[in-house]
Amino acid sequence: MGVWSLVVRMPRRSVLNLLGLGTRAVSLLNGNSLQTFHSSLKHASSLPKAGFKPEKVAVVTKTTRYEFEQQRYQYAGLSEEDLKHLLALKGSSYSGLQERHKIHTNNVEHIVKSLRSEGIEVRIVKRGEYDEEVVRWADAIISAGGDGTMLLVASKVLSKDKPVVGVNTDPERSEGHLCLPVRYTHAFPEALKKLCCGEFRWLWRQRIRLHLEGTGINPTPVDLHEQQMSLEQHSQAHRITTMLRKGNPYESFSKPNLLPIRSLNEIFIGESLSSRASYYEISVDDGPWEKQKSSGLSICTGTGSKAWSYNINKLAEQAVEEVLNIGKSQTGLDIPLNRDFIEKVTDLYNKSLVFSPDDRRMFFSIREPIVNRVFSSSRQRGFASKVSVRSRCWDACMVVDGGTSFEFNDGAIATISLSEEDQLRTVDLEN
Amino acid sequence: MGVWSLVVRMPRRSVLNLLGLGTRAVSLLNGNSLQTFHSSLKHASSLPKAGFKPEKVAVVTKTTRYEFEQQRYQYAGLSEEDLKHLLALKGSSYSGLQERHKIHTNNVEHIVKSLRSEGIEVRIVKRGEYDEEVVRWADAIISAGGDGTMLLVASKVLSKDKPVVGVNTDPERSEGHLCLPVRYTHAFPEALKKLCCGEFRWLWRQRIRLHLEGTGINPTPVDLHEQQMSLEQHSQAHRITTMLRKGNPYESFSKPNLLPIRSLNEIFIGESLSSRASYYEISVDDGPWEKQKSSGLSICTGTGSKAWSYNINKLAEQAVEEVLNIGKSQTGLDIPLNRDFIEKVTDLYNKSLVFSPDDRRMFFSIREPIVNRVFSSSRQRGFASKVSVRSRCWDACMVVDGGTSFEFNDGAIATISLSEEDQLRTVDLEN
Repeated sequence: MGVWSLVVRMPRRSVLNLLGLGTRAVSLLNGNSLQTFHSSLKHASSLPKAGFKPEKVAVVTKTTRYEFEQQRYQYAGLSEEDLKHLLALKGSSYSGLQERHKIHTNNVEHIVKSLRSEGIEVRIVKRGEYDEEVVRWADAIISAGGDGTMLLVASKVLSKDKPVVGVNTDPERSEGHLCLPVRYTHAFPEALKKLCCGEFRWLWRQRIRLHLEGTGINPTPVDLHEQQMSLEQHSQAHRITTMLRKGNPYESFSKPNLLPIRSLNEIFIGESLSSRASYYEISVDDGPWEKQKSSGLSICTGTGSKAWSYNINKLAEQAVEEVLNIGKSQTGLDIPLNRDFIEKVTDLYNKSLVFSPDDRRMFFSIREPIVNRVFSSSRQRGFASKVSVRSRCWDACMVVDGGTSFEFNDGAIATISLSEEDQLRTVDLEN
Repeated sequence: MGVWSLVVRMPRRSVLNLLGLGTRAVSLLNGNSLQTFHSSLKHASSLPKAGFKPEKVAVVTKTTRYEFEQQRYQYAGLSEEDLKHLLALKGSSYSGLQERHKIHTNNVEHIVKSLRSEGIEVRIVKRGEYDEEVVRWADAIISAGGDGTMLLVASKVLSKDKPVVGVNTDPERSEGHLCLPVRYTHAFPEALKKLCCGEFRWLWRQRIRLHLEGTGINPTPVDLHEQQMSLEQHSQAHRITTMLRKGNPYESFSKPNLLPIRSLNEIFIGESLSSRASYYEISVDDGPWEKQKSSGLSICTGTGSKAWSYNINKLAEQAVEEVLNIGKSQTGLDIPLNRDFIEKVTDLYNKSLVFSPDDRRMFFSIREPIVNRVFSSSRQRGFASKVSVRSRCWDACMVVDGGTSFEFNDGAIATISLSEEDQLRTVDLEN
């Protein structure tokens, strides 16, 4: 086991560096894509008693693709010229990446300047350096990036008292649904003014908590974004954290271990390898256990109901048209099914998948359930207060907000639930 | 880069052994799950002119989970007792695994005995030893396992003249839709008799072929089953094959490279890490290129239309009921939507996803398309004769029949098509 004994003796960060890991803003399957998003905010917010004037603000910045590619190629010993050439070969543009990088850094500068001119103490923190100490220090945290950065920032804020604000630093490239409206990116002083004067509402987003127990569990998470995960690096990182963890190989956690992370969008459970089926047992709201085989399981919040869960469950017009046509032919009635009608039904169906960020329920979806003699699926999706999952997987993970991954293999049990303490305090500047 | 220089100097098999790789029958997302399967066979077969009497038959056997766990634990230096204990901790049963293993080996013995008593020369080949030489030697090949084994066996048969027959060696655990009906597992001499007497039909299953070109491609495949792939091992294996391949790092294939593999079920293209979004460009039947972001792309044959593609596209009654209810409310008509009606519509919808194994078309499906300002999706699925895909992925793969994986990263271009030469010759024993 020559290779592995070498690896074990190295400090974790050196190993990860050896593997060429750096930072990158990895795109998520999370795309909050509905226009009704803002209208649902009205149910979820509350008026502040006075203005909000933080003394200390941490600004957490994303890693641009330009920075990421630079780090990666510098590590490999390649020059800037080599990088340009390689990118060109792939059909990517070096100058394009530089441009997006410049846009982002200019917007960060704008935010920081605006804060400092209000006499606020600012600490600029790269995503890789962002930790609990930064959260403790800050009175408020600003995420300067896209939705992915916002999810990461939120993930380390466990208290419902610490406000988090997202600013979209590249509106042309990021959807930024978890961020302030795009106009504040270039007019941040306006946003600050509203905050100071109390012209805003608090928006309390309900989040999900996770307990893990059973054998084969490793409660040390792996950051998918920070560590530029390829498939290999993902499991390698899981494996390293397991090896570095001291203890009996037959160690079993006798009581559930509450993980120090809260999910703002969703928990995804499934085999790490995208082409492999996931096996597990599931119990919803303490109901009977069901053995299932599928492409994985998603459990989302109201905030997350517009993200990956939405993409799992939404229907294309093509599918809705087919269902309606079959339905029509089965009734034998002459029901007019024109393009507008189909669009309307599709739209209403997809909207019904979305619920309010402050809703105290979670929504589970089984992705591509495989139903046969051995496996069943009583409900493909639904609301719940509690979902328990027992892994029967070979090399699976539990992924929080598309960004943090926990090993979740055969024998491990996850309990997914909500608690009022887990709300995230964000702001709503719409009037 | 100490670790890697060590790795490069080792022969590939040693490296893979070092990583603790052995064999395992890994479950696929391929579950051919429709009852109409057999009825569709009638369109696809043709009567033989005379009986079929092979002189030399290769019997390719699956690796049972029992064998797999043994190899894995022996490699780790654990005893049989340790193995029992570990399995029990995970809630698995050692004696259960032994039992399934015994059932499989007994059924293989039955097949081999039956063949030999007809004077046929038999070569028993483990899946790990199965290669082109075996295919050349044999007049016919029997797959003794489940659907996964059948897919592997078929993948190395490039000629449409070499018959392949699947026998399900554990009917209680495997669906075996690509195998002979279950009764022949215990009465194989009956099947042999029918073959010899010509009381059967040939079933020609159309398969898919793949061309690869562009930068960042590695035409050396990785066998997901043979190599007990965890996520890490999957990409590590890709990486090793890249390093072992000689040549200029900027090497680009100037003309498309036809891969020596044919897909019986489907090609899946997407990021290897299940939680990461896939970026690519797609052109259907030489149409305009479209930039897309999704959970991946599936392109299947008629055979595969009952497998993973079916699971991607099928609708649960729950969803159909919702669509019909919304449709009903939009018409304002009083249309009765009872349980039977909904079941019927769901069933017809799902059946419409299936097409004949000898159909000369492929069916593409975009899994969880993400539609926003940047990405569009004109059609979520449809038939095609040719599909071209350009990768914009970070760490993606092209997976053939859930079992063989090719690296498919940024810049690589895959062309997926059908050719009459690519049919697989199988048998239909139903009268």
